Amino acid sequence: MAVIVGRNAPAVADAAKKWGWTESATDWREVIARDDIDIVDIVTPGASHTEIAIAALEAGKHVLCEKPLANTVEDASRMVDAAARGATRGLRAVVGFTYRRVPAVTFMRDLIAKGRIGTVQQVRAAYRQDWLVDRGMPLGWRLRKDLAGSGALGDIGAHIIDMTQFVTGLSIVSVSGVLDTIVKERPLLGSGSGLSGTAAEGFGEVTVDDVAIFAGRLENGALASFEATRFATGRKNALTIEVSGDKGSLAFDLEDLNGLLFYDRTAPDDVQGFTKIIVTENVHPYVSAWWPPGHTLGYEHGFVHQVKDLVDGIVGGFDPHPTFAEGLSVQRVLAAVERSAARDSGWVVPGDLSPAEEETRVGRPITPFTGRRAEDPA
Amino acid sequence: MAVIVGRNAPAVADAAKKWGWTESATDWREVIARDDIDIVDIVTPGASHTEIAIAALEAGKHVLCEKPLANTVEDASRMVDAAARGATRGLRAVVGFTYRRVPAVTFMRDLIAKGRIGTVQQVRAAYRQDWLVDRGMPLGWRLRKDLAGSGALGDIGAHIIDMTQFVTGLSIVSVSGVLDTIVKERPLLGSGSGLSGTAAEGFGEVTVDDVAIFAGRLENGALASFEATRFATGRKNALTIEVSGDKGSLAFDLEDLNGLLFYDRTAPDDVQGFTKIIVTENVHPYVSAWWPPGHTLGYEHGFVHQVKDLVDGIVGGFDPHPTFAEGLSVQRVLAAVERSAARDSGWVVPGDLSPAEEETRVGRPITPFTGRRAEDPA
Amino acid sequence: MAVIVGRNAPAVADAAKKWGWTESATDWREVIARDDIDIVDIVTPGASHTEIAIAALEAGKHVLCEKPLANTVEDASRMVDAAARGATRGLRAVVGFTYRRVPAVTFMRDLIAKGRIGTVQQVRAAYRQDWLVDRGMPLGWRLRKDLAGSGALGDIGAHIIDMTQFVTGLSIVSVSGVLDTIVKERPLLGSGSGLSGTAAEGFGEVTVDDVAIFAGRLENGALASFEATRFATGRKNALTIEVSGDKGSLAFDLEDLNGLLFYDRTAPDDVQGFTKIIVTENVHPYVSAWWPPGHTLGYEHGFVHQVKDLVDGIVGGFDPHPTFAEGLSVQRVLAAVERSAARDSGWVVPGDLSPAEEETRVGRPITPFTGRRAEDPA
Amino acid sequence: MAVIVGRNAPAVADAAKKWGWTESATDWREVIARDDIDIVDIVTPGASHTEIAIAALEAGKHVLCEKPLANTVEDASRMVDAAARGATRGLRAVVGFTYRRVPAVTFMRDLIAKGRIGTVQQVRAAYRQDWLVDRGMPLGWRLRKDLAGSGALGDIGAHIIDMTQFVTGLSIVSVSGVLDTIVKERPLLGSGSGLSGTAAEGFGEVTVDDVAIFAGRLENGALASFEATRFATGRKNALTIEVSGDKGSLAFDLEDLNGLLFYDRTAPDDVQGFTKIIVTENVHPYVSAWWPPGHTLGYEHGFVHQVKDLVDGIVGGFDPHPTFAEGLSVQRVLAAVERSAARDSGWVVPGDLSPAEEETRVGRPITPFTGRRAEDPA
Repeated sequence: MAVIVGRNAPAVADAAKKWGWTESATDWREVIARDDIDIVDIVTPGASHTEIAIAALEAGKHVLCEKPLANTVEDASRMVDAAARGATRGLRAVVGFTYRRVPAVTFMRDLIAKGRIGTVQQVRAAYRQDWLVDRGMPLGWRLRKDLAGSGALGDIGAHIIDMTQFVTGLSIVSVSGVLDTIVKERPLLGSGSGLSGTAAEGFGEVTVDDVAIFAGRLENGALASFEATRFATGRKNALTIEVSGDKGSLAFDLEDLNGLLFYDRTAPDDVQGFTKIIVTENVHPYVSAWWPPGHTLGYEHGFVHQVKDLVDGIVGGFDPHPTFAEGLSVQRVLAAVERSAARDSGWVVPGDLSPAEEETRVGRPITPFTGRRAEDPA
Repeated sequence: MAVIVGRNAPAVADAAKKWGWTESATDWREVIARDDIDIVDIVTPGASHTEIAIAALEAGKHVLCEKPLANTVEDASRMVDAAARGATRGLRAVVGFTYRRVPAVTFMRDLIAKGRIGTVQQVRAAYRQDWLVDRGMPLGWRLRKDLAGSGALGDIGAHIIDMTQFVTGLSIVSVSGVLDTIVKERPLLGSGSGLSGTAAEGFGEVTVDDVAIFAGRLENGALASFEATRFATGRKNALTIEVSGDKGSLAFDLEDLNGLLFYDRTAPDDVQGFTKIIVTENVHPYVSAWWPPGHTLGYEHGFVHQVKDLVDGIVGGFDPHPTFAEGLSVQRVLAAVERSAARDSGWVVPGDLSPAEEETRVGRPITPFTGRRAEDPA
Repeated sequence: MAVIVGRNAPAVADAAKKWGWTESATDWREVIARDDIDIVDIVTPGASHTEIAIAALEAGKHVLCEKPLANTVEDASRMVDAAARGATRGLRAVVGFTYRRVPAVTFMRDLIAKGRIGTVQQVRAAYRQDWLVDRGMPLGWRLRKDLAGSGALGDIGAHIIDMTQFVTGLSIVSVSGVLDTIVKERPLLGSGSGLSGTAAEGFGEVTVDDVAIFAGRLENGALASFEATRFATGRKNALTIEVSGDKGSLAFDLEDLNGLLFYDRTAPDDVQGFTKIIVTENVHPYVSAWWPPGHTLGYEHGFVHQVKDLVDGIVGGFDPHPTFAEGLSVQRVLAAVERSAARDSGWVVPGDLSPAEEETRVGRPITPFTGRRAEDPA
Repeated sequence: MAVIVGRNAPAVADAAKKWGWTESATDWREVIARDDIDIVDIVTPGASHTEIAIAALEAGKHVLCEKPLANTVEDASRMVDAAARGATRGLRAVVGFTYRRVPAVTFMRDLIAKGRIGTVQQVRAAYRQDWLVDRGMPLGWRLRKDLAGSGALGDIGAHIIDMTQFVTGLSIVSVSGVLDTIVKERPLLGSGSGLSGTAAEGFGEVTVDDVAIFAGRLENGALASFEATRFATGRKNALTIEVSGDKGSLAFDLEDLNGLLFYDRTAPDDVQGFTKIIVTENVHPYVSAWWPPGHTLGYEHGFVHQVKDLVDGIVGGFDPHPTFAEGLSVQRVLAAVERSAARDSGWVVPGDLSPAEEETRVGRPITPFTGRRAEDPA
């Protein structure tokens, strides 16, 4: 924890002192140029990810970049290219989908990969918050398209897109969706930032979505449904995902993050049911470093695991997931949902196509359900 | 319980004896013609609802018809006309969306109508079963389009469409959806019927959907998401609905049908949360006729309440809900989902339009969110 | 449903009409003397169970008697004798611990009997209600020792004593407990009765316990803990029982009566957890007569199962459980708890001993834990 | 984090390096004598708490001592005396009942203190683990009376005794209980220690309790029931507490430590129920230092809060709770439970009496329920 960088010199100096950083600075370019910096952790709004990440990689730094990777597919693609160039120099580039590293989520991935629920036949994923139900919540950067890229879709929808692809091992190959902005004007932002800013006088337009609802088709033909919303009154941080296979199913809820529900259709008929596994045993991912069984972990442990895996990758010379390429694949799905929403919810194939090229692809018959598992030969 | 009618004379005679019907018969037309029959309860597959219901009404009988009302909008419209003619003669015609009469669901409607959650801003409803995950499940009538009209969509999707409109008091004014058939061939049906039939040799094509996922727009602009599936491994009868308003929210799960979750945003900040109301108090709908607090009701009590309300309506000279017109509105939404699914998930307005007329309506800007409550003047 | 008997002629005539009894009467002795009566169902307060049951058995009637069997061990013993005499004439005598016949409870018994949780090592059972938290609740018969025998202990504690013995197959061989009356005076009862009576002017003394807390030793040495209370604010009908074995455990909650939690210690380490079995499958006890999977049962189905089993026993010539002898064993435990509470919570062995004889038994070393299963040879 | 002390020099040196301590040492007396040490954190087995704590206080150090405070009341009393002498020199002495500082538990205390559930009328508390169900678990220090003092009673029963007194503000004034050792011999301990030791050849006797079940009387007369067990198969770290008052109730479960259930009897009749408060809002205790709403905390945050409060106390010149005196009060209850268990579960008043003096107190009429709140004048 060498240098913390921010725009406001006194504020960032205070932060350095409070949180134990050795130094503070206001010019990220200068910091990136220093020889004594090895890793750059990018936690700015999405609009500046690309410039900083590419500069850091070119300066020979390992990069950990917050999600979503960028605000556009184009920017994300350039970051992937930079990461590929960096890789030839031994640099690691990781995007911060930390929820992958909640032990229950990693374990869910493991159980699916081992075939414990058989072929994935349906997925339903949602990320529900409610902080925008308050109409007095001011127009912070997360509500401005120029800074955040999108609203609930990119901020929290990105998590469930990534988690779906991560736990199933299957890519999302087409989407159909709708976006909505329920409260179209909000008080301008006064002091503060993030979720804790206060309102100033005057109103401004909300330029991002409050709610995104979309369906997706996985590469094996399975249907997935998604909801990302900041208007689910009473739901504070309710990321839920349920994967239904032909041999069982798994369900996870971030508000109960030490638990994992597992339904085993191969169990005897009379004792089938959802088993609530408390994912705090030594045999579970990451847990042996922590507490005894039943002594629960919290939100931040995913971040600790992320740093650990990054450092392991740097030391061991391998790429920790999720790579920038995985971040790009999420970005493509986000962009495809936006395009679908703009075209009467018609199905769109995520990709790098120009709008003209893409026209020739949408509307084609969507992938039929094949029952192929991710690991099967095509 | 005068006469039970079926096609197989010995089987229906057995059923009459077992279940306490005075007589059995095999020709419904003869029974409808009898003077000593007052009420006809139609529980056949959807394909025969229309003919029986119209004949019964013309013969001067009150009618209770299972859901969905019919297999097509046209048939349902004719039934509404017949019900209107019957109404002039004092006849009552009700469609069997029994889940409206689960006390927790009726109470949910009451709380919303009283404004306890404010303006409805989002709805999410799902009905999940898993009996088709078993690939050996034979091709019963519920899997044949000629008899059932549709699959999960009409059978269980109809319930969540009706329940959404019932509890919010808001109509669904446009939809975008996708249908899927995961297992396309199944063993032919041997003996038995319904869900308990056994397989014969040979295979036949499944001609209905296994899964329906769709989004809907309510008349006040709120977005709703829907899932009806018979492939949610481990979910046996999981009808869930959550309505998010600007002052609170309500959530219900049929697998825990005596409970209702209520989040009150107007409560003091520090004690907000979902309150699990056990809907078994005398002050709750229908409950005063039953047991003491905490002594729970089951699945069949909704049917008892339905019969009670129908008889009350007959005696009192008023129309119990849901009327055939409400059944028709559900049928229109079902048909609209099918049309949307056939047209790349483009948005479709439920209605009685011919395909040509309809083309001029779809694609128009969907209703913006107005925040209007159902009871407000437009 | 031939004759309903009550003390107030007009009220019982109304009840007969409302609930479908052929006749009503006010003198139970006359009714018992009739030849056309086969079964007598006793639902009076405990003080009159003995006289009616013995008379009915002597008159050659089968008897179903509400729990607890009687208000004293002496009375219960006389009933057991009468039942034994009746048995020689082919008469059946059953006590109404209906919760045994909730499918999940019967299934819990079956799983334990099959050894699925191994040796029972601990039991915890509670029955929590809260209707006496309201200090205005009048002094109905359930609060008078002369009529009810005891309070929470006999009314609801009896259920958990019986259920513990039923599901484990193990007798309770000693107890240590405490009783408490939190509200010592209540308004006199005006009109009405049971739980729905209204208050009159004036106050009277509550002569029964509001709360009973006791520990018990099972015949294999396992410890069990019990709580029966009418003061558990917010708990309406919360009968819970959890049985811990060396191979697994089972837990049940009457407020969620279609569910059963099963923990299987023999499952692979990484997927152990409590499995919530929804006890609504055809393979579960009693369920094949009811609805499809996930379509839940309610409170009253236990009563239906009880009547069915009684009629099966009468027709088949066998004794349905719980017999009067089982009812007596519960009565002995209830009495032992009262004696323990009166003697500074010293341990008491349930039995028929005179106080003097008993003195020689209490204080002896309590049964050590042997790990013997109920079905093992001693 | 200056010096970590252990008995095995290489092992403690490794630990220092791994966990970031500046130095390691093997002689705690030398470390305590150093001038550069300000705070001593005692995490040894209970048998050595007293000597170390008294020495540290006499050496002018602030002390944080793990629970239970000591293995005997006598030792705990001497520690209280030492803390009192230290207090005159400005030294702070705190005992580590960390669960008090789980935000939901502190908030529970606050709600009770504000009168939100009215007069406390009943408490039920349990701490259930299952790590001893495995008969191969070796005879570590926690199973030896000479080192641990007692078993489940002192290790985890201490937590629920403390928590009951903490959240209600009421002392436990008498107890009646039973202890049990289910597995009486276990493999000797080979390498390792704590919960992760491995077995050696040979067997040794378990000299502590596996299970403790006891009832307690609070100073206002309310009854409380307690269970501490290491044999609750499937329960990993299930500390649960429920407090029933005449205006409401509160329930907490450590396996879901961000939640708190609140039942408000003063709410309108039709919407009463248990509200699950997710205690992660800025208005909740300790939370403003952590994450946004719904982003959960884990087991270790209680320790962080404990250190923070201790440092605040040192800086601010006040005694953070729980003081050594509070630790002593828990120790007295533990000892009273053991004496009751040894005397046929007769009621025992916690205190410092000699056995002879005590005889004159036990058996006296236990405190009747007065309904007095802790803060009321007696």
